[in-house]
Amino acid sequence: MGVKGSKAVLAELLLPVAPEMERMRAILSAQILESSPAVSDMTDHVARFQGKQLRGALVLLSGEATGNTTDEHAAVAAIVELIHLATLVHDDILDGAEVRRRVACVNQRWDNQIAVLLGDFLYARAFALSTQLSSRLCSRLLADTTRTLCVGEIEQSTRRFDFEMSQADYEKIASQKTASLYAAACELGARYPGGNQELGARMAEAGRCLGLAFQIVDDCLDLTAREEELGKTVGTDVEDGKVTLPVLHAYRASGETARAAIRDAYTQPDVSDRRAALFAVCDVSAGVAEAEARARALVDAALEILATLPPSDASRSMEGLFQFVLSRNQ
Amino acid sequence: MGVKGSKAVLAELLLPVAPEMERMRAILSAQILESSPAVSDMTDHVARFQGKQLRGALVLLSGEATGNTTDEHAAVAAIVELIHLATLVHDDILDGAEVRRRVACVNQRWDNQIAVLLGDFLYARAFALSTQLSSRLCSRLLADTTRTLCVGEIEQSTRRFDFEMSQADYEKIASQKTASLYAAACELGARYPGGNQELGARMAEAGRCLGLAFQIVDDCLDLTAREEELGKTVGTDVEDGKVTLPVLHAYRASGETARAAIRDAYTQPDVSDRRAALFAVCDVSAGVAEAEARARALVDAALEILATLPPSDASRSMEGLFQFVLSRNQ
Repeated sequence: MGVKGSKAVLAELLLPVAPEMERMRAILSAQILESSPAVSDMTDHVARFQGKQLRGALVLLSGEATGNTTDEHAAVAAIVELIHLATLVHDDILDGAEVRRRVACVNQRWDNQIAVLLGDFLYARAFALSTQLSSRLCSRLLADTTRTLCVGEIEQSTRRFDFEMSQADYEKIASQKTASLYAAACELGARYPGGNQELGARMAEAGRCLGLAFQIVDDCLDLTAREEELGKTVGTDVEDGKVTLPVLHAYRASGETARAAIRDAYTQPDVSDRRAALFAVCDVSAGVAEAEARARALVDAALEILATLPPSDASRSMEGLFQFVLSRNQ
Repeated sequence: MGVKGSKAVLAELLLPVAPEMERMRAILSAQILESSPAVSDMTDHVARFQGKQLRGALVLLSGEATGNTTDEHAAVAAIVELIHLATLVHDDILDGAEVRRRVACVNQRWDNQIAVLLGDFLYARAFALSTQLSSRLCSRLLADTTRTLCVGEIEQSTRRFDFEMSQADYEKIASQKTASLYAAACELGARYPGGNQELGARMAEAGRCLGLAFQIVDDCLDLTAREEELGKTVGTDVEDGKVTLPVLHAYRASGETARAAIRDAYTQPDVSDRRAALFAVCDVSAGVAEAEARARALVDAALEILATLPPSDASRSMEGLFQFVLSRNQ
């Protein structure tokens, strides 16, 4: 599935919520506007990298699929997307080592401090908009989710180069840093403004499984994709010392000599392409296949939850979206 | 007033709200706790640099002084302090140039990415706690204030080396990046949970004047204080290209040759002590005196607003706190 192909697939999947997606985008654009010229120059740029808006779509689809739609769902979806945008902007902050390594070769649009402030601005916009909604559920759930996202990211940063990490620890961190926002999107769709807590919890679990699968697929693509297909730098996890699930599998399957070579690929100075170095010393593809199988199982679990809903265009779209996450190559 | 002396002065000023300050600190400690060991290691450190807690104190004093006290004021004060802590943590993010310049000589406790996440975590905690309060006023006002803080910081970052900036522009930016949180603290004290909007607006204006005075005093201290007295690095504004009010005054009062020398002090490479270089080429002290006079006038304006309140221990404390901001040397 090429870049263009996947866009078309996604647009077709989202047809049942297309008008609501339009409303979401209009709200998002209005929120990103700011009268300050310095800020609007930046947010214009941010507006251009809004991506697939999967999380916002999940709010809308989960609402439709559970028969829980309100006039405010589009705003809730926009808030979820704003929080996602804020995390993307903050993910771009480079640490000291990275600045020294990359600054010369990367054409950074702004510097670290500006990225911090711009992310903070987007978070603040998200929370401000949520406080205007008729129910406080969105503020409450998303403030907690944002905390969880941060905790996951912080945990991850302390586990760099940890080749002994268990799969359970990897999944816990990925659940926090990535899947929690997918879970919140599905829960809010099904529950907002208050609604059925039990149904909300089930949809949250579907979102969590999907988000975890998304993260695993992301980690695999960072190892296997070509830069021009993915549309972003590849091999960054290895460069940044992140030991992802496919690498954990490859490491565990390796003998002591290969393990030492894997550690060297991550850590030895002056390795020009760490990803290539990793492929040279162990069976990365087997690790990737094992990780992909886990992603498949997670999507199956999410699909099982979906299957408990009454059939509808929206539930079929959600099903398609879950498959899309698994098969995406960007 | 030495470090110890000023602490004692402040403690005495805050006597009318001492039990509430204790409650605020207990809430703050509980909010900073997190079960994740990676996070708690960092928040322990943050807890140690909580500083003077002026903004939290203003919530409590403004409440007492306007006769508007509730069981939730201590939590509102804690939320304001959490937001302030988050901004402090994010202020520590270094840009690429600073990393290259400072990383070798500064013993950074953590790297940029961790500081971003820790600040985000503190913001999220603040918003999460605010969503638990009985009234939404705190969430609403502080989400808007956080946005304003970010806009001010972003504007400031685009005005580096702008020696032609008007005093009005300087004050607008300082109002946004610093005074807005003082204003919100005073407004929330007087209004929370809903209350008198007109009184809230007046107290917000007092807070805004005070916060602006605080920023001007801060800018003067960065030029005049000795590091061991201030307890933090001095001369950072000049190092970072920030043209503060005292420098704007000194620049405006200088002839063309001195102006060029001022610009050189800020920009020429290999200047080892830019603050000293600045003092060598223009009358910084006169600029500082002019800025201090403006801070004095702002505090007087804030005191005039205070004078409209019925006399009480709390209003006298607030008066003392306003004077404290003016006379502080740390």
